[in-house]
Amino acid sequence: MRYFDHNATHPLSPVARAAWLDAVDRFPANPSSPHRWGARAGKALDDAREQLAAWLGCGASDIVWTAGATESNNAVLQHLGTTTEGWVLMSPLEHPSMRMAVDRWLAGRCEFLPVNRSGVVEWGELANRLKAGGVTAVISMAANNETGVIQPWRELQALCAQAGVAYVCDAAQWLGKRAGAGLGSCDFVTGCAHKFGGPPGGGFLKCPPGFRPLLVGGPQEDGRRAGTENVPAILSMVAALGEREAALGGISGTGSGFEGILASKQTSRDRFIDALKSGLPGVEIVGEASERLWNTVAALMPAAADCRRRWVVRLDRLGFAVSTGSACASGKEKPSSVLSAMGYRSDESDRMLRFSAGWETTEQDWLDLWQAVQEAARSLLDVRSAGPDPR
Amino acid sequence: MRYFDHNATHPLSPVARAAWLDAVDRFPANPSSPHRWGARAGKALDDAREQLAAWLGCGASDIVWTAGATESNNAVLQHLGTTTEGWVLMSPLEHPSMRMAVDRWLAGRCEFLPVNRSGVVEWGELANRLKAGGVTAVISMAANNETGVIQPWRELQALCAQAGVAYVCDAAQWLGKRAGAGLGSCDFVTGCAHKFGGPPGGGFLKCPPGFRPLLVGGPQEDGRRAGTENVPAILSMVAALGEREAALGGISGTGSGFEGILASKQTSRDRFIDALKSGLPGVEIVGEASERLWNTVAALMPAAADCRRRWVVRLDRLGFAVSTGSACASGKEKPSSVLSAMGYRSDESDRMLRFSAGWETTEQDWLDLWQAVQEAARSLLDVRSAGPDPR
Repeated sequence: MRYFDHNATHPLSPVARAAWLDAVDRFPANPSSPHRWGARAGKALDDAREQLAAWLGCGASDIVWTAGATESNNAVLQHLGTTTEGWVLMSPLEHPSMRMAVDRWLAGRCEFLPVNRSGVVEWGELANRLKAGGVTAVISMAANNETGVIQPWRELQALCAQAGVAYVCDAAQWLGKRAGAGLGSCDFVTGCAHKFGGPPGGGFLKCPPGFRPLLVGGPQEDGRRAGTENVPAILSMVAALGEREAALGGISGTGSGFEGILASKQTSRDRFIDALKSGLPGVEIVGEASERLWNTVAALMPAAADCRRRWVVRLDRLGFAVSTGSACASGKEKPSSVLSAMGYRSDESDRMLRFSAGWETTEQDWLDLWQAVQEAARSLLDVRSAGPDPR
Repeated sequence: MRYFDHNATHPLSPVARAAWLDAVDRFPANPSSPHRWGARAGKALDDAREQLAAWLGCGASDIVWTAGATESNNAVLQHLGTTTEGWVLMSPLEHPSMRMAVDRWLAGRCEFLPVNRSGVVEWGELANRLKAGGVTAVISMAANNETGVIQPWRELQALCAQAGVAYVCDAAQWLGKRAGAGLGSCDFVTGCAHKFGGPPGGGFLKCPPGFRPLLVGGPQEDGRRAGTENVPAILSMVAALGEREAALGGISGTGSGFEGILASKQTSRDRFIDALKSGLPGVEIVGEASERLWNTVAALMPAAADCRRRWVVRLDRLGFAVSTGSACASGKEKPSSVLSAMGYRSDESDRMLRFSAGWETTEQDWLDLWQAVQEAARSLLDVRSAGPDPR
């Protein structure tokens, strides 16, 4: 199977696998235990904390280990909902774990930020809105999981810092695809391992002092998250991210890393997009006018009955795993709230397929995917022409 | 290092390690994804659910996968706190993650059950209390983490079922040491992998229909727990428990397994206790009059300045990892609430050491531990006699 669903889960990287096994062997004890084995496990967690904090640009003590981004997002919203007053301004592009946690913890206290047709949060009026007062936090992700569209998190962070308003940034899709440098300036940052080749069950939260835990029952993580820390998952997550950060230019910024490696990855992806658009009339690339992650293609396919489900099944039979959008929403096949926020009708968003590559995806994989899409199209759409070659 | 802190964390078993690696290789995708790789991962989770449900004696659909017992306990209390009215009757022996979650979600709605000096919840008056009405749930663990004392969960479950009151049973320390059969009759059961040789980050919750999730944001686990399931941790947890259940007699009950294997493990432990009591005047075994897990010794050591911390450090230098009690509480060195509920003064409970063995612990390990305790005692207590040999 050729795998184009990395935004749902990136398979475990060899580096992460080795780090997990190494941690299991070297740190078998509970990091809260009072003996040397416990202390060693605790020290390993602290070293990992220093490492992640250095990539993000924050203090190590700001990092809380969790079991994943969904837990982290729920924890942040619980904290805001129970310790603050006033409004939160949220992007309607957020992941369901953010949106539903707002419904749970901040019901009646949420205003949506405007979004343009290209899938970017519009922040032109934000400074005025913040000046008007009554806002406790702004919530907007770093990069969108369905479309790959990059969001203006640096600008939002700066505006919020100026206004003294907390800024919450879900970086689950950003980390490991772009360098993490600068994210540590956001008041709250959430992320998880299995989006960049780390293991499921590894997650983190960057938060300010005074954080109120969602999970209670022990002094772990300085009282900010009870429960035995998942030492092997955490060390494996940091090892996986370390490999990505090194390739991306690490803490020195996104510059050289992006041009060197990501540009060529993006070129392969863009050739697929060009082939798709010229070979299959009616295809639309969602967010095409915007800067997007180098790995993601959100495409509205030509109309066909029960469209996207049939595309997924047909491509699956041809040996290609693709998705219909958010893994967390796709089980239910509801219209995408992301596309809806961008102004797409449900009959349009129902045509969406998401192709998301990983670090190991090659130019040939993209070329073969295009061949498979053409073959699927022939049976689904009765298209006779095979379309042009993408090169 | 000889490890006697299994009640804090049981190192990963070889079976669990192999299952984790197998799952990582065979099920690399997100179980919510719409392609075959996703469906296969989902099927593996469902098979694991069937397996665990068979051991506990409940329906597979009653099982929700979580990241650990602390999350499970928090989730149950959140559910009870927000969807029920009336009192909860709780054992004061519960783990901090249960007690603090009650404070969070059921503040002012909790009565404590009485406990005797032997560390067992007394249930003689419970039928009358339940008849008096106003009780929504009874909370009492299966076996205590600090003392190993077995609790009357079968009796409590029967009384609650008769009265139509929910019964919540934290089985984190029971599972893998005693067969799980019958636990599925409890309305809520919680447990986690790393107490029986499974990986950290694997946990579960058995709950009735209509459960309100603590983590929101996706349709996973039938809407009862959002977030991508940790497939390798779950499959590894079930593999680890499978090995224990097979040794313990599996779903056929505790009978033969207990007599065959556990009796000899318990005998090794009891010889250590006999040596401790006769060789070190002033030692008291907590809960000695009660049925206890075969692996646990909670001992009040002879008085010495800053007693238990010094014992831990001295034994550590001699190559033995032991604990002072609950890993979740030991970081803070507060008096044990468990011993306090049993009627011990804080100057008594401050003398407690916990020795907790695992499946791989041998008779020789216990003998060597006793030698080390004697050596530590010589410097800490200025005891000249080496005490009798435990055989």
